Amino acid sequence: MKKRVAVIGAGPSGLAQLRAFQSAAAKGAEIPEVVCFEKQENWGGLWNYTWRTGLDEFGEPVHGSMYRYLWSNGPKEGLEFADYSFEEHFGKQIGSYPPRAVLFDYIEGRVKKAGVRDWIRFCTTVRFVRYNEQTGQFTVTAHDLKADRMYDEVFDHVIVASGHFSTPNVPEFPGFATFGGRVLHAHDFRDAMEFKGKDILIVGTSYSAEDIGSQCWKYGAKSITVAHRTAPMGYDWPSNWQEVPILERVDETTAYFKDGTQAKVDAIILCTGYKHHFPFLPDDLRLKTRNRLAAADLYKGVVWVKNPKLFYIGMQDQWFTFNMFDAQGWWVRDAIMGRITIPDEAARAKDVVDRVAAEDAGKDAHDAIHYQGDYVKELIAETDYPPFDVDGACEAFFAWKEHKAKDIMTFRDNAYASVMTGTMAPLHHTPWKDALEDSMDSYLRN
Amino acid sequence: MKKRVAVIGAGPSGLAQLRAFQSAAAKGAEIPEVVCFEKQENWGGLWNYTWRTGLDEFGEPVHGSMYRYLWSNGPKEGLEFADYSFEEHFGKQIGSYPPRAVLFDYIEGRVKKAGVRDWIRFCTTVRFVRYNEQTGQFTVTAHDLKADRMYDEVFDHVIVASGHFSTPNVPEFPGFATFGGRVLHAHDFRDAMEFKGKDILIVGTSYSAEDIGSQCWKYGAKSITVAHRTAPMGYDWPSNWQEVPILERVDETTAYFKDGTQAKVDAIILCTGYKHHFPFLPDDLRLKTRNRLAAADLYKGVVWVKNPKLFYIGMQDQWFTFNMFDAQGWWVRDAIMGRITIPDEAARAKDVVDRVAAEDAGKDAHDAIHYQGDYVKELIAETDYPPFDVDGACEAFFAWKEHKAKDIMTFRDNAYASVMTGTMAPLHHTPWKDALEDSMDSYLRN
Repeated sequence: MKKRVAVIGAGPSGLAQLRAFQSAAAKGAEIPEVVCFEKQENWGGLWNYTWRTGLDEFGEPVHGSMYRYLWSNGPKEGLEFADYSFEEHFGKQIGSYPPRAVLFDYIEGRVKKAGVRDWIRFCTTVRFVRYNEQTGQFTVTAHDLKADRMYDEVFDHVIVASGHFSTPNVPEFPGFATFGGRVLHAHDFRDAMEFKGKDILIVGTSYSAEDIGSQCWKYGAKSITVAHRTAPMGYDWPSNWQEVPILERVDETTAYFKDGTQAKVDAIILCTGYKHHFPFLPDDLRLKTRNRLAAADLYKGVVWVKNPKLFYIGMQDQWFTFNMFDAQGWWVRDAIMGRITIPDEAARAKDVVDRVAAEDAGKDAHDAIHYQGDYVKELIAETDYPPFDVDGACEAFFAWKEHKAKDIMTFRDNAYASVMTGTMAPLHHTPWKDALEDSMDSYLRN
Repeated sequence: MKKRVAVIGAGPSGLAQLRAFQSAAAKGAEIPEVVCFEKQENWGGLWNYTWRTGLDEFGEPVHGSMYRYLWSNGPKEGLEFADYSFEEHFGKQIGSYPPRAVLFDYIEGRVKKAGVRDWIRFCTTVRFVRYNEQTGQFTVTAHDLKADRMYDEVFDHVIVASGHFSTPNVPEFPGFATFGGRVLHAHDFRDAMEFKGKDILIVGTSYSAEDIGSQCWKYGAKSITVAHRTAPMGYDWPSNWQEVPILERVDETTAYFKDGTQAKVDAIILCTGYKHHFPFLPDDLRLKTRNRLAAADLYKGVVWVKNPKLFYIGMQDQWFTFNMFDAQGWWVRDAIMGRITIPDEAARAKDVVDRVAAEDAGKDAHDAIHYQGDYVKELIAETDYPPFDVDGACEAFFAWKEHKAKDIMTFRDNAYASVMTGTMAPLHHTPWKDALEDSMDSYLRN
């Protein structure tokens, strides 16, 4: 009997896993039966845009956190697939900060070529996973949402690739219950046009805060006030943008900050992060971790320490993304196929401790980028994933950070060289702040 | 060994069930151990207001669908508890259309008096329920959200009282993905002030459409356009309110209707109903029904035909509410305690068929109200729930409908007599349309 492997989620992480298995099969290896469960109607995970917020057409939590007009907030040269370059996909090199639709197309191009779509059960959510000590197998309870049918299936391995930027962390501040405007989390932000002419309060200093604030500014918000808990982001913001200390309370119309200042605001956008949320996993299988580079309880960042038949992909905080998920997917594939040996629980636990210590030894973002680059190199070295210039990708991240520090509203007007093909990206034809139209057609017109 | 009973949900239906068991215990009966699982931090179900939308502080779907400034849209004389009058709770008679906070206080008053709060595990959601044919018992997998701990417990009976106005039915119309304003379902509507000065499109003709439109009008929306699929609501609306045929599509700013007309709109509120949604129940236990008075597959409207150890409370469409849930809770209690005998599956199935036929034989709302009144009478007659003048409650509903037809913006300025105590309600001191302040203090100042 062939082994059976369940992959939960068909976003960048899950698709990396499918491509990993398919690439082994293409080289003649006998691979397990792979079943991928995807809640959404299409693949792409977060990159599959939806106008929906809250609950979807089936009453399930909406996975998507993306908004209209989103462009990559980091250079594409840091995330390029080593086995499928942008040039292969688009037939030419493209700009360094593609809009969402362009990246979706790129992600999809690889898996279309791989022919793995029929491994995926769309509109199917996983309700529960149980591990049976007697049989050494997992029972996955899936729900076919269109047919409204639940069923159990047995698997030898489960790979959790459901992401961790879909379940918002939503703090309450005094007065929210009686504030007269909209209070929303970044997860539910969709269209900056809704906030045109308005005074916006953003809570938090994450990437979401930075980018949603910038979107609102770009599309005509009247003012943007960003409240921070520990420190301001410190960029040289436009004149109608201010950074203030933590929000203390709101009344029906006004926000009050810790330094005694106040601002009349029309809407409050909570950019307060996301939760690792796995309601389908019991305590003995459920990852609980802070959003950090060395995630808790994962040997090599992917193997569940307490049960090495269970894997997690992409659960780290991320500088590296798509190609790191690849490195993980290839490694997990090889572990499942017996090409890599997983050590005993003590060794697995020690590995986690060591990784946490190594991350903690770093002192800044520069160290963190190198730390994660080294992690990617480590995994790639143990599989047949095409080696690439990871240090070069790190350099793209460093340049990106410098460009952001120089001017937060023009950093996307820069271009970098691909570490996969060496080709320099073209400069985009329009500065980001003036490019109100974000279609793929428009972006590819270089 | 005592029987163990799980009640899922501590809203009006679940609390009716707890009160039913407690009232039997108060009369000296030996009752089963009752454990109530409640996802929210407090009881009251929909009546427990939250500013939150989408996912809650634990990443779980928000239960609440209520908005600020909501007043009962039907007369309180139709929903009064037979064992706990408004006069007992407030020490005097009160107006007929109380705001949310007043009704919450009333619901809470009865169960505080009953002393059942410690039967409830708050911040605890039910992840899954399985029935074991061998043991004849249910395993409930619960998740203590604060401790982030999942656990299994075994019960002899499960009573599903989780409501059916929490999971929105959200259709898509062409253009939603690129509409520039907010698109939301009534479930996520919170504060009419957000829509002050705006042009609002409401889709649907439900109670939500009627009442959310009225709220937006009351709090200063610029215009209200309501699109209907089959027929307009037909009330004599204010001058800035229009009813139009079904929405065909939207572009970035404008909605286009089937009759060729169009309207520039700032926000779209989908008042398109709710789903019966039980993601924690497998196929053999999961109710699938339209929202109707004779719900599918429930003997006596409460017993799961295929497994009479499983019950559902409050799953019908509703004219009667709180006191109907009471009638059901008392009846289910007596079935579990062996005071009522449940017939075999064939008889249970026939009962459902008969109820559907009886509902279908009715020709209008008047018949439907009597149909549900008769159902309430039928259940009450088989238990010790205090008999009350159900026909009198029906009369309150008929009067309410007439008052609405006469003037949709003043119907709440009427008053009715309690069928429990006979006391006439006072006229409220301020017409509803002018009463912008909806606190309990203000409402009780009669």
